[in-house]
Formats: sequence, C-alpha cells, structure tokens
Amino acid sequence: MTIALHRVFDAPLDSIVFDVGHQCYTHKLLTGRVEAFAGLRQVAGLSGFPNRRESPYDCFGTGHASTSISAALGLLIGDRLQGGAHRSIAVIGDGALTGGLAYEALSHAGHLGLPLIVVLNDNKMSISPNVGGLSHYLSRLSMKRRYQTFRKAFDSALQKVPFVGELLFNVVVRLKRAVKAVFYTDNFFVDLGFEYVGPIDGHSIDQLEKVFRDVRALERPVVVHVLTKKGKGYRFAEEDPSRYHGVGSFSRNEGLNPAQQSGAPTFTDAFGQALLESGRHDRRVVGISAAMEKGTGLSAFHVNYPDRFFDVGIAEEHAVTFAAGLAVQGLRPVLALYSTFAQRAVDQIIHDVALQKLPVTFAVDRAGFVSDDGVTHQGLFDCSLFRPIPGMTIFAPASAVELAAMLHYALSCDSGPVMIRYPKALCPPEIPEFSMKVEPGRGLFIRREGNPVCIAFTGSLYPQVCDAAKLYGPVDLYNIRFIQPVDEAFLAEIMNNYQLLLFVEEGIKAGGFGEYASEIAHRFKCRAQICVLGVDGTVPALGKREELLRINALDGAGIAERIRSWNK
Amino acid sequence: MTIALHRVFDAPLDSIVFDVGHQCYTHKLLTGRVEAFAGLRQVAGLSGFPNRRESPYDCFGTGHASTSISAALGLLIGDRLQGGAHRSIAVIGDGALTGGLAYEALSHAGHLGLPLIVVLNDNKMSISPNVGGLSHYLSRLSMKRRYQTFRKAFDSALQKVPFVGELLFNVVVRLKRAVKAVFYTDNFFVDLGFEYVGPIDGHSIDQLEKVFRDVRALERPVVVHVLTKKGKGYRFAEEDPSRYHGVGSFSRNEGLNPAQQSGAPTFTDAFGQALLESGRHDRRVVGISAAMEKGTGLSAFHVNYPDRFFDVGIAEEHAVTFAAGLAVQGLRPVLALYSTFAQRAVDQIIHDVALQKLPVTFAVDRAGFVSDDGVTHQGLFDCSLFRPIPGMTIFAPASAVELAAMLHYALSCDSGPVMIRYPKALCPPEIPEFSMKVEPGRGLFIRREGNPVCIAFTGSLYPQVCDAAKLYGPVDLYNIRFIQPVDEAFLAEIMNNYQLLLFVEEGIKAGGFGEYASEIAHRFKCRAQICVLGVDGTVPALGKREELLRINALDGAGIAERIRSWNK
Repeated sequence: MTIALHRVFDAPLDSIVFDVGHQCYTHKLLTGRVEAFAGLRQVAGLSGFPNRRESPYDCFGTGHASTSISAALGLLIGDRLQGGAHRSIAVIGDGALTGGLAYEALSHAGHLGLPLIVVLNDNKMSISPNVGGLSHYLSRLSMKRRYQTFRKAFDSALQKVPFVGELLFNVVVRLKRAVKAVFYTDNFFVDLGFEYVGPIDGHSIDQLEKVFRDVRALERPVVVHVLTKKGKGYRFAEEDPSRYHGVGSFSRNEGLNPAQQSGAPTFTDAFGQALLESGRHDRRVVGISAAMEKGTGLSAFHVNYPDRFFDVGIAEEHAVTFAAGLAVQGLRPVLALYSTFAQRAVDQIIHDVALQKLPVTFAVDRAGFVSDDGVTHQGLFDCSLFRPIPGMTIFAPASAVELAAMLHYALSCDSGPVMIRYPKALCPPEIPEFSMKVEPGRGLFIRREGNPVCIAFTGSLYPQVCDAAKLYGPVDLYNIRFIQPVDEAFLAEIMNNYQLLLFVEEGIKAGGFGEYASEIAHRFKCRAQICVLGVDGTVPALGKREELLRINALDGAGIAERIRSWNK
Repeated sequence: MTIALHRVFDAPLDSIVFDVGHQCYTHKLLTGRVEAFAGLRQVAGLSGFPNRRESPYDCFGTGHASTSISAALGLLIGDRLQGGAHRSIAVIGDGALTGGLAYEALSHAGHLGLPLIVVLNDNKMSISPNVGGLSHYLSRLSMKRRYQTFRKAFDSALQKVPFVGELLFNVVVRLKRAVKAVFYTDNFFVDLGFEYVGPIDGHSIDQLEKVFRDVRALERPVVVHVLTKKGKGYRFAEEDPSRYHGVGSFSRNEGLNPAQQSGAPTFTDAFGQALLESGRHDRRVVGISAAMEKGTGLSAFHVNYPDRFFDVGIAEEHAVTFAAGLAVQGLRPVLALYSTFAQRAVDQIIHDVALQKLPVTFAVDRAGFVSDDGVTHQGLFDCSLFRPIPGMTIFAPASAVELAAMLHYALSCDSGPVMIRYPKALCPPEIPEFSMKVEPGRGLFIRREGNPVCIAFTGSLYPQVCDAAKLYGPVDLYNIRFIQPVDEAFLAEIMNNYQLLLFVEEGIKAGGFGEYASEIAHRFKCRAQICVLGVDGTVPALGKREELLRINALDGAGIAERIRSWNK
C-alpha cells in the first residue's frame, strides 16, 4: 500500500499522514532512510513514528491515535488557501478510527467537501483485535454479504420471469441499479459526506495503484477502504502480530527474542495482580481498558471476571465518562491507561469524575520516561495535569506492595477519584517500610539518620535515589507517596529538619510536586534549602528509560552530583 | 419530549441523562423544583444544568457536550451488574452529536448490544445552526427524500404493469421490502449497531409516548430520532433561539432584555477586533471556532474573510489538530475557545501542536470565573494545565490594547504555540503602560513607588488590584503579562525589592503562577515574603463573576484585607 501511495502521489508536495505512525516504516525506507534504519528507535536514531525534524517526507508527526484526518485536512486547506492544488492523504487503521477525534475530522471534512483522501487500512486489529460497533460494521462492509445474497436471489428470480415488455425491463433494471447503489454507496462514510471505494486488496500493488490514480482525480472527499493482513509476508509477524506492533531492529531469520521473563515483576504485573485480588474480594470492582488490555496488565482480570471487564477501544475519553456512570451506580471502576494517553481525557476526568466526586480509580501506567517510543509517548505530564484537580488523590508507589496498598486505599475511598502512577519498570525488592500503613497526605522515611541532606522522591525513582545515596554517602530518604493531597504541616516540619531537601520527580517540573513543596517551604518559612530535580524545558526524545534518566540527571550519579555541587 | 419521557420511564430508578443539560429545565420543573425555579442560575439557587447534589432525578451532572451516551451506558451496566433491569436514556442534541466522545460511546454501546436508549433531539442547531457532515446527513435522514421519490416512481410503475403471475408479484414485494428495509434501517446508527426509530415529531406527546413505550421493551440499543424546534411555543425564543440558549429567569411577557450595549468593549470584542485587523494585514491568519463563533467574537472575521474562517462544530480536539495542519503549511491559525472547553483538547495541544513547535495561537476566552453557568464552566484550570507544556507561551492581557499587542506578538512568533487568556468582562480604560512593548518573559510595573508591598497580578484582575490599592493604600502594582515563559532573574530581582509580594491570579493555585513564583523566590533566595492568592481546594459554583471574585477573596476588599492581615 505504501509503495502504491508513493508511486501515485507526489510526496512531499502531496502530504501523506500516517496515523499513529508505526505503519510508516516502509515509507521511511522509500524516502531515503535505508541507511539510518539500523538505528531505529535508538538514542539519536530514527523515530518509530513520522517526525517532521527527520525528513520533509514526514509532513506531520504522529504517535497518538486518530489525529491523521484532522491533520491531513489542515494540510489540504493550508495548501489550497495559498493557491496550491496538491493532494492530502490520511492513512488510518481501523483501530484508530474508533477514536472520537477521527470522527470529528470525518464529519468536518465531509461537510467541507474538499478532495481529502482517507485510506482506511483495515486489518481488523488495533494492537489486539479491534472492538467497537464500527469494527463490526467494517467487517460487514468488507463481506458485503447482504448485497451478495440479495443479488443472487434477485438474479435467479429474474431468470425465471417471462418476458413482459420493455416497461417491466426498465423497472427491473432501475431497481437493480438502485439496490446496488444503495448497497455500494450508502454506508457510514457516505453518510458523513465522503465517496467510498472498496474494499480493496491491500497487498495488490497494481489494484491499489489503479484505485489511487482514480481517487487522485476526484474533487470530493473519499475513503479508500483497503484490507490488509497485519505482518503480511513475514511469518513470525503473521503468527503473532501484536508482538510485532512498533518494533525496533531485530534479526530477520530469528525474529524478535522471546519475551524475557525475569524473576522480578514489573509494576504493570503488580497492578494486574493487585486488581485481580481486589476483584476477588469486592464484586464492585470493574476493570476498564482503552485497547490496552495486555499492556496495562488487565488480562488476568478479564479472564477471571469477564462480566466486569470492558475494553472500550481506542477511546480514552469515553472510557472515563463511562467509568463515571458506573461509579454513580455504586461500582468501583478501575481504568488502566498509559500516562501519555490519559492526556486525552483531561476534561472528562475533571468534568465527569472529579467535579462529581466520583470514586473512579485511574491506574496510570508508563508514568515517567518511556523506552523506545520517543517524544510523543513520554509519561511526564500526568502529575502536572492532574494535581490542579480539586479532590483528586495522586499516589506514586515505590514497590509492588505499596502499589497494592494504594489500590486498596483507592477502592475503599468514597470521596472522589484516585490516581496511581507508576513507571514501565521492574518492581524493586520489598523493604518493610513499603508495607507501612497509608496515611492520608503523608509520605514516610525509608532512611532517617538525622543527616543534613534528605532526598524526597516520587515512587518510581526509589532505585535511583538508593544509587545516589550509595554514591554520595549519608543522606536521609523520604518516600513522598502522596503527590496529592499533602499534609502541609507534616511536610513543612520535615523541611525544617534539613539543610538541603532535594525533591526528585519523574515528570515535568512546571506544575509538579517540587514547585508545590517550594511554595510550602516558603509559606512555612522552613529552614531547608529546597532543590527540585525533574524534567525541564524540553520533552526528552528517543532512548531507553535508563538512558533518559541519565540524560536528565535523574539517575543515581546525576542526583548525587547535584548534592555534591550544592555542598561546594 | 421531556413530559413523554417522564410518563413512560420510571425516574429516578430509570436514568435519564440530559446531554449539555440546558434542555433539562422541563425535567427540573417536573421533578419537584417549581418553587426553586425563581432562583435559577443564581448564587445558592438551581443550577442551569443537571446536578447530582440538587436532586436524585439528576442522575448524572452534565455541562460540557457529548458526555451523555457514555454516562448512560455506564449507568445501565452499573445497574445490570447488580441485578437491576432499569432503563438508561441519553437525551442528546444533534449539536452534541458532532463531538467525538458521543461517537466513541455509540460505537462501544453498539458493540455491547445492551438496551441503551439514545434520544436524538434534533433541532438542527447546536447553539447556532449546526455544522458538520453528520448534520447534513441527519437532514437527509429526516426528509428521507430518496426513499420517498423512489417509492413514488416504483409504485406508479407497478400500477402500469400487467398481471404476470404470482412469481413476479413475490419478487416485486420482496424487492419493495428490501428497498424499504435498506432505506429505513441502514443508516449511520444502524452501522454502529443500534436500532433506529424515527424521525418523530418531538412536539407530539402522544406519538412520543407510544414510541418510548415501544423502545422501552426493546432488548437492544436504539436511537430514537426526534425532530424539535428550538424555542417551540414561545414566540421570542422561536424568533431568536440562540439568545434563549441557557437563560436565567426573565419576564414571560417581555422576554429577555435587549442585549445591553455599554460603551466599553469586552475582552471578547477586543479580541475580535484585533483579529480582524491582523487578518487585514496578514493573509496567513485563519480563524477557527468550535461552534462558538459569536461567543468568541469571530463573527466579523467570518464575514470579512469567509475563506479563512472555519467553524468545525463542537469538536475542540479536531479544531486543534486541524489548526496544527494549517500551521505546517505556513498559515497562522488562531483558534478561539472558552477556557473550560480547551480542557477537551489538552492532548492535541501537547501532541500535535507543542511537540511540533507549531505556531498556533489559542485565544482562551472566559478564562477565570464565569457567570451563571456554575461549576462545570469555570475557566480556572487553563494556566495550570498549559503551563507545564514546553515551548508554550501564555499571555494574560489586562486591557484591549495589551491583548492586541499580544496577538500581534503571537502572530509574528515562529517558534511555537501561544495562548492569550482573558475573562468574560469589560475591558478597563487604557493607561499608557498597557501600550508598552511586549518583552519576552517580562511583565511591567503599573505603579512603582518603592512601597514595601507589591501586588503582582494576572491581567484579568487589574481592576480588582486597583480597587485593593485604593482600599489599602500605597502598594506597587506589577502586571505579570507572561504566565510563561518567565525571565526568572528579572522576576527574582523584583522579588528582592519588597517585603511582601502578593501574586493574585484568577485560577486554581495548584500548578499556577504563584507556586512557580514561590519556587523562583526560594531558589533565588529573594528577600520578599511571597503570598499567593487564587482559587484553592474547590471549584466555585453558581454566581456572577463579581460575586465569585468576592467569595474567593479576589476582589479589591479581599486582596486589601490580605495585605492588612500580613501587616498585623
């Protein structure tokens, strides 16, 4: 499909926007990036997504789902307003089409009637098999069974009809045309104002080229419905398409390494396990995912409590408001999201959950630095975005036990929403402190020796502050636990006992915990010098989480160095 | 329609969710709130929207568009999971149906196949006449012209056909049924998995009751398409429906007072005028609205530059990504949004605009306290939500001249997005300081007399701090101008010159400017005591902006009192 697109359209003058963007690998190879491909998804290497800084052929950066139609429409009108007559093509998967943004864009584009080309790459998958009413519908559209069945019956009936003159013949032909027209053109996309062509075999370059040439000449918006097989042509990927979604470089003959099972569970595993336990004891617990069941660790819950599990598709906004409805009825919905995708639902979290003080629990996975995906997928905004929301509790667990305790706290809390944020990382070994009771607004000391320096940290950075303590020497360690609410007097007293108090957080500093702590320190006239470590200024790009921590001086060495430079 | 709903369904056991909620007035009157109705939209009075704290009949609070289907689905499943068999009804307008959230919910509900009832209240309006491909489609669906035309031709042709035996008759009947079935049932909603009934006269209680009784018995999701006339039965409202959208109490005989034209323009007027000017000199300027052309002051721009104006419907997310596409092509899109609705597009602002450093300008109207609408519509989050975004410039103008200068700055800035936030309020009289050059990251003194106390304020509160100065006595006044970025050294030097520096902001304190300033003060070891005034803890409810400022101690008296209490 990508080959056919590049043969027919004149990129970069014509704009090709790849939704989500994982599907852009062929595009990158065709547009001068064969050599660079070995560095795919590595520090200073090629992004796994289209990136405007990488190539003029990447006309619009993508990453989060469902943006391509809006962007392509903007690109088209931007060109037309300046007298251009270039084409603009959005390539979108059936999974991304479940996102409301795609629909808003289809509706607007259909209204305007400009020659936008939407290529629907329909492989019946988002990352896992696709869900949603539209998905069923696309299947039906692909099969056209009703039309086929109907035509067969009609044709065979007609053959038996005796000749009754021209009039009847005309009626019949007109009917046949009408029926055919109805079945072929009156569909979802046509309803929104688009022409519709398809479905087409997405692995036939000839057929695709022909169709793309046809639609290039159209002066109206059109959807080209293309059927593809995820992983087509590469056995390993055909057999396990989910694992080959958004990959880096690997050996062609051997495929990806088998998923490594280390001894230690990840935070995602810990959450999945804790939710499963909660579900066993509390029938009010409902698990919700937005097309990320496996990624967020909900599979076991789904298997054990299928009635209480909902995958809503790539639709974070709906997931939140749907959860709010469940909570009104006395249930305890737990919505597991990646931090970066939670950005999609800020308004629903404020308007539908928090303002109504509803007990919805948000499991915010991939909070902090995210390996391999780069700038679009960093989970660095959640603390800043959700801390301003009145009545929101935000936890940052440092271990599996702490995470479980926080989930338990959340599920027994009637007074409003709770977030639990944790990184994509292995859980550290447990220590007794992690088992200590969760007290509203208060963190706890991991080490308290009366040192002049204390490092206060958000849970995900516990291993890094331990490293810093090893490298620097004697420091006290304070696990913040609650990003919000904060027992201000309690924290102020702590800040009074030190010469230096470092707040280290795995997130953007602006609007983060450290700024708030500084304000408290100032207001309470605390003795300690406050120093905030976090992400400043720009969102980090490609790399493994460990590399990104190091680059942003949030690894052990970076934190220790910061204390040393203060001591000088 | 509301009467018929309440006759057929058993609220509050059955859940009726009114999307947006302005349409709930009849519902409130029918559910025990006739007496209280005189206090509609006033402090401590009835909300103009459904509100869970007000009545058990208000089963889900609404305000922002497109939430009802998600919420009603959650309410339905929450009931079913606990063994209930109650009904759940979402009442949604055709305007709210353009929001992507509604589509996500339709798709999920269609997939699940549960008996959710969606009543589509189709009056061809959102607030102004509705736009979007779906809107066209609904019109077509309402008229069913193609089916009517076709059936007429078909029937008249049939009458001329001679008798040809039972076989042909059967074929014809089958065909007729098939065609009818296609026209009646294969529509947008059916594609998503719903049954469809309609269109129905929304002012015929009998007809509606009958249909509602029918659909109550269905065990599948269904859309009931109801045609209504906005303002029906009240001449003033029928003649000017937009003005009667979301009103408080008024004289039945006289209608609403004519819109008052005071001498001073509002900030909205000032923005509209400034944008018109910019559009005249700069052909790259494009105006975008999300169904709020008039409310955001874009009408004059629309009239003068129809090719460069786009109303995308109630679709803030699409509006942002669409603007990003325009910006890539070298245009200078200006998207005017209400602060509260900008919450809908946080991810698009981060992911599609800011990460790509695109020059999109956001005119954030209704930033701060908002009169009459209450908790769901307060514009108090924008500073906290958008300050963490790297590369985002945020302005807070204090006057029309300053707003124009900031817009000019934004449109000549190539380096990334710019926001200009201003309240729904009259512009204050101009003073020479407002005309002074905009210097990146720096505010300016409105009064600098070497007093021990300085009030630093975000633009919208200029009249209030002037009042405070009158009430308290000698204070210096500093207009912050830039919420972001901030020339930290410049601000620190200012903070070094005072005993007390008050930061007053019209927004949530958590994550706001004051916390950041406190952090700067602490880091730079400034001499001044910092005191932050803003909104703390809970989002304010009903009232006029002036009342809400007073209640939150952000009026002149409140600010002056704060200085006095510090002096004691």
